[in-house]
Amino acid sequence: MEEVKLFSFWGSPFSQRVIWALKLKGVSYEYIEEDISNKSNQLLEYNPVHKKVPVLVHGGKPVAESMVILEYIDETWPENPLLPKDEYERSTVRFWAKFIDEKVRPMWEFFILVGEKQEKAIKDNFEILRTIEEHGLGEQQHFFGGNKIGLADIALGWIVHVLEPMEEIVGVKFIEADTYPRLHAWVKNFKEVPAIKENLPNRDGVLEFLKGKREMFIKTACHDHHH
Amino acid sequence: MEEVKLFSFWGSPFSQRVIWALKLKGVSYEYIEEDISNKSNQLLEYNPVHKKVPVLVHGGKPVAESMVILEYIDETWPENPLLPKDEYERSTVRFWAKFIDEKVRPMWEFFILVGEKQEKAIKDNFEILRTIEEHGLGEQQHFFGGNKIGLADIALGWIVHVLEPMEEIVGVKFIEADTYPRLHAWVKNFKEVPAIKENLPNRDGVLEFLKGKREMFIKTACHDHHH
Repeated sequence: MEEVKLFSFWGSPFSQRVIWALKLKGVSYEYIEEDISNKSNQLLEYNPVHKKVPVLVHGGKPVAESMVILEYIDETWPENPLLPKDEYERSTVRFWAKFIDEKVRPMWEFFILVGEKQEKAIKDNFEILRTIEEHGLGEQQHFFGGNKIGLADIALGWIVHVLEPMEEIVGVKFIEADTYPRLHAWVKNFKEVPAIKENLPNRDGVLEFLKGKREMFIKTACHDHHH
Repeated sequence: MEEVKLFSFWGSPFSQRVIWALKLKGVSYEYIEEDISNKSNQLLEYNPVHKKVPVLVHGGKPVAESMVILEYIDETWPENPLLPKDEYERSTVRFWAKFIDEKVRPMWEFFILVGEKQEKAIKDNFEILRTIEEHGLGEQQHFFGGNKIGLADIALGWIVHVLEPMEEIVGVKFIEADTYPRLHAWVKNFKEVPAIKENLPNRDGVLEFLKGKREMFIKTACHDHHH
């Protein structure tokens, strides 16, 4: 067995994707916490292009970018597959994984904006979630593309441990049982998977971290506004 | 053999990726040209999320998003693989395919902006290309991840038939043999692959199309500026 190391940051939803995938596969690994305000030379060497966590190092060879890492993990450790066998079903899961991945940063906007811009960002989030609700999740499906947790579910998992605390801080709720019943059920199903449930970052810690982030962003936004 | 259809637009670099992949694989398909200012109901039904070309329809089932389509094509028709066999090499090619895919729209900016913003966009393009030159292409490699054309090469292919005419119109040249020798060689290698060479959109047509686009964008930019 070749050594597996994960360069990670506890508050990163992208690192968390990799942790979940490794746990789902039952792969043991060494966890290396990065100080993202003072990144290690090793991280910068392993990911010179993006200079970001997560980086998975397997047998000394680095893989960067969380969605690329997930595909690598799925191909390297085939047990508990993250993608279905059928090529068409795989393409559907990849479609949603890509859609979701591209929406993470726009969906954060509501948290770092104020006033009219924030209102617009909140409205956009409801639209993004409506698209997932109406097109991404089937009526009888627990997860994207079927009844087994996979690539797209892991990509969306950040809404459980990051978006929910953000909602709490801002005072808005995006996913309710009566408005988005499939997404609401998906959140419940996702949280019940042992590898997820047992590997969620500490909620109070995330809440404190995000409150600090928001204060910083709002201070900057107001400063810019007055100049 | 199940029927293969491609909903496409001749000027779309994303459609072109799919055409090249199908040609590399030797897959016959029906080509359906979309009027992107008046999209067909079929296209909207097949891609209700993005409402965009390209859409590949195989045996009546649609796949959208060019990079997702390329993976589907590679898994469905394994001849002339677009990804290496080795999992680690695959992850490297996927890393670059993702990097390149994410940079297409930012790299267009220089073409639709003017003044200082355009200068900034041009500088950004040189930086993006430097990253590819220094980290993406090995010294002895003809293509990304080896000596066979693949996923990342197809993703970058737009620089041959879209970026080059854009450069000509704006009067800037990004890739020269003395500044980016590996990229310069890559362009040459890419153009020499028969499936690429024989399937490049008509250069004069692209030039005229882009000139029209640029005029429209600049008119809008100046209009916004004066109000």
